[in-house]
Amino acid sequence: MSKSVKVIFLGGVGEIGKNMTALEYGDDIVVVDCGVEFPREDSPGIDAIIPDITYIRENRDKLRGIVLTHGHEDHIGAIPYYADELDVPIYGTALTLGLLERKLAERGAKCKLVRVDEGDTVNLGAFSVEFIKVAHSMAGACALSVTTPLGVIFVTGDFKIDNTPIDGKKTDLQRIAEIGAKGVLLMLGESTNVERKGSSTSEMVVGQGLESIFVSNADKRLVIACFASSNYRVQQILWLAEKYGRKVVLAGRSMKGIVEVASRVGELQIPKGIIVDGIGKLPPEKVVVVSTGTQGEPASALNKMSRGDFGKVSIGCDDVVVLSSTPIPGNEKSIYEVINNLFRKGAHVIYEAMNEVHVSGHAYEEELKIMLSLVRPKFFIPVHGEYRHQFKHAEIARSLGVREENIVIPSIGEVYGVGRTCLKQHSNVTAGNVYVDGVVLEDGNAVVSDRRSLAEYGMLLVLASVDTERGVIAGDCEVIARGFNLTDDIESEIRSVVRDTVNGADFDAESLNELTRTVKKAVRKLFYRDRQFPVIIPIIVQD
Amino acid sequence: MSKSVKVIFLGGVGEIGKNMTALEYGDDIVVVDCGVEFPREDSPGIDAIIPDITYIRENRDKLRGIVLTHGHEDHIGAIPYYADELDVPIYGTALTLGLLERKLAERGAKCKLVRVDEGDTVNLGAFSVEFIKVAHSMAGACALSVTTPLGVIFVTGDFKIDNTPIDGKKTDLQRIAEIGAKGVLLMLGESTNVERKGSSTSEMVVGQGLESIFVSNADKRLVIACFASSNYRVQQILWLAEKYGRKVVLAGRSMKGIVEVASRVGELQIPKGIIVDGIGKLPPEKVVVVSTGTQGEPASALNKMSRGDFGKVSIGCDDVVVLSSTPIPGNEKSIYEVINNLFRKGAHVIYEAMNEVHVSGHAYEEELKIMLSLVRPKFFIPVHGEYRHQFKHAEIARSLGVREENIVIPSIGEVYGVGRTCLKQHSNVTAGNVYVDGVVLEDGNAVVSDRRSLAEYGMLLVLASVDTERGVIAGDCEVIARGFNLTDDIESEIRSVVRDTVNGADFDAESLNELTRTVKKAVRKLFYRDRQFPVIIPIIVQD
Repeated sequence: MSKSVKVIFLGGVGEIGKNMTALEYGDDIVVVDCGVEFPREDSPGIDAIIPDITYIRENRDKLRGIVLTHGHEDHIGAIPYYADELDVPIYGTALTLGLLERKLAERGAKCKLVRVDEGDTVNLGAFSVEFIKVAHSMAGACALSVTTPLGVIFVTGDFKIDNTPIDGKKTDLQRIAEIGAKGVLLMLGESTNVERKGSSTSEMVVGQGLESIFVSNADKRLVIACFASSNYRVQQILWLAEKYGRKVVLAGRSMKGIVEVASRVGELQIPKGIIVDGIGKLPPEKVVVVSTGTQGEPASALNKMSRGDFGKVSIGCDDVVVLSSTPIPGNEKSIYEVINNLFRKGAHVIYEAMNEVHVSGHAYEEELKIMLSLVRPKFFIPVHGEYRHQFKHAEIARSLGVREENIVIPSIGEVYGVGRTCLKQHSNVTAGNVYVDGVVLEDGNAVVSDRRSLAEYGMLLVLASVDTERGVIAGDCEVIARGFNLTDDIESEIRSVVRDTVNGADFDAESLNELTRTVKKAVRKLFYRDRQFPVIIPIIVQD
Repeated sequence: MSKSVKVIFLGGVGEIGKNMTALEYGDDIVVVDCGVEFPREDSPGIDAIIPDITYIRENRDKLRGIVLTHGHEDHIGAIPYYADELDVPIYGTALTLGLLERKLAERGAKCKLVRVDEGDTVNLGAFSVEFIKVAHSMAGACALSVTTPLGVIFVTGDFKIDNTPIDGKKTDLQRIAEIGAKGVLLMLGESTNVERKGSSTSEMVVGQGLESIFVSNADKRLVIACFASSNYRVQQILWLAEKYGRKVVLAGRSMKGIVEVASRVGELQIPKGIIVDGIGKLPPEKVVVVSTGTQGEPASALNKMSRGDFGKVSIGCDDVVVLSSTPIPGNEKSIYEVINNLFRKGAHVIYEAMNEVHVSGHAYEEELKIMLSLVRPKFFIPVHGEYRHQFKHAEIARSLGVREENIVIPSIGEVYGVGRTCLKQHSNVTAGNVYVDGVVLEDGNAVVSDRRSLAEYGMLLVLASVDTERGVIAGDCEVIARGFNLTDDIESEIRSVVRDTVNGADFDAESLNELTRTVKKAVRKLFYRDRQFPVIIPIIVQD
């Protein structure tokens, strides 16, 4: 049998190949990224969804290291939960590791972090991994060119092609072209914005948009919300504050923490004396508040401001609030509630629906074509995105000359073997969602599935005391409902069903446990006709 | 005291003045619309949210009639729930009443429906209401010009200004101008699309977009999903099917039902013999399937097709599926799941992200300006929309000459009195959300709030049997969890807290009920430290 490099899609179910992917050859495994998937409305109360690392755990002795493409949560956020188990060197650029250190410290975890610079190569068993600079919405993002004994596997990571990045560090198209010219066996290409035609806008344009807001609101206080990790965005705000004579107040714990990290690793230049601790006696036109909370997060500084609950900044008609962001689908309701409340307080609110105050960090269709044209892979796997994105990206690859049979669209847990002449599916491995609710849940799927039923239909508790000798209910049975509309009619129906079930039971043959199951079935049946499926908890005790 | 006309904002909390508004003068009340608000993720398991009609119920003797602007769910959908109580004449155009009849029949309800035509005026006590044709995404939509003893109140309803409507019936700008010229006291103007610059696109453009799909996919089967109530959209598909020699198969119960209604009232022309019962032996290129399910609804025809669960139509690579729609925020996840699954089945899927296959039925900024310029109201209340929309609409009204002090942005339950010279807030009335889950929930707020807690944190049931004479727990206590991660540690902590609480209780002073409350408090306290708030149900029984 000819050898192959295995590509193993671990990580969250949402976007294949985003949170965690493993490459395996012989006795060596390298893991690319280890991030969280953001919980959505179908996993209520869940803090984070992390990858199932069963396969890595079982092959721990093969694991040579973890390489990180960049420092966003969905690429590094799961490491603190697995720090003890994944005690291998973790490679990343300065900002990536700075952000990871902060997350590790929050959970009191430790890892062996090894800093690399753009252009560096690290050798990990059979693999050698070159970190190649790409532009993204934060500094320190890299594509990975992984040289394997069978050829090069090129992982784009999250990227865009920004020709005027504000730190001057462009996507290293030159180096990517060189690698492509030598021949790439397989490319894993991100697909996030494949549906958007043309090319993404340069981060610099946001600076221009923000500057016009500085100019036209020279007499107002400015509050600008953006992701704390968007160091380029924060950088531009700092420069504008300097240019227009305003002091900067950082609002929100993560904004302060991440600005500190970005500055420490040299990815953020803070003009001297520009950041002040509080507004103090500064007049509105001398202040810009930089805040977290663009996604409407309840505990964020912006949300608190909108509710008048953020002591340091009280929003009023002297304020212009800018949301320099776009809503992540699913967050619209919370975001617009914040915006509505800011308007109610008299502020003028500027947000994406009507202004150019945000650009995406992900490549659009034409940029994806440029990447494919430079890398010229033999085999192609579109990653990061839902199936529709991957499908569209596969179409694009075909249109650029990748052969149809050389493209696959993977699912979570699938393993593909790539050799010099073929790309084939192997058997699957355990993979998927592990839920975190404060702690890592052992049986998270059951917990989440119960929560969904409870949310949808509520619950019914039926408590009956049974006289096992006479084989009848002793006294009345009790019905307790939560999240369920328990009318008198339904309640008496339940009582009579329970009574009939108990009284009809054969106590010689049935144990109390069996009776409990029978009662549950009988009560559940009551609700079938209305297609209601409340969680039913029967408790049958012996009198 | 000078007299005034009261404007009372009943209806769902979401968009003020959309679902239900009442006008009152002296002993007469007229209600405008009576619709449902669509449930969102914060009301899990809820079928519909209907207006709280307490105020109307209490003033039933004043109610002269209900006037309907058009036949969408959010304007007529609550009537079947209140049919018995609101036994007054209900006025609407043919399609509006046709759709309402269908909804009433579904619930076995009856109302006194009075058909009006565009241009008609009905007298209701002190009010006379003129129905004025406006374009919208369905036929039979009207603005209302309500003449009161103190002046005209102009209610735009949902509208757009489509200069090339496919039935030739334009928004009656001529008549609106005439009314404006005579003087309008107050305008209630819809604000849905106020954030969109320019003007909305004509429905005709969708026909052109769809035609190009017919032309370029002449050898494929077409499946087009749209709202069943979008009679213009369905009309264009029928015409295209006729032109390109395809038969039409209607998929989905509501599609069949509503097409029948629209055709019966003359708002849909069905070319003879074009609609067939099933695909039968027709080759792909001879069929277009018109389906429901644009919002990813689980029970819809399109969703079933995407899961291979719709016997009549089996989707494969011979299919082009068009979603002629836009996602309603909150539905994205379900919609994209359907789209992903259709792609997986090999179909080519065309949807709004990449194509012109949908236009909005609501006026954009410039159309709103035209309406304001023609109506020229003295007082203005922006309605239909969140606060941010109303705020922006108020700004536009100011820019067009309405005086700042003559504009108010109302909240649900607020009552405004408008007189010849002033617009003033009166005291509030009971209003808000009434939840429907199969039936109208009597205590819906508690049910929904419990469901939210259950979803977010799960539940814990603590069952203990107490020997009241000795004042101690008899045997062990039982802990049952649902949607909660019950570890052994937590379970034994709970047991010991319950044991300590019971054993420390003063059974002479405390009743069993009081003890139950004390136990609940003690257990709840255990979770405070982790900021978890599971629903705790303690059951303490006497041994």
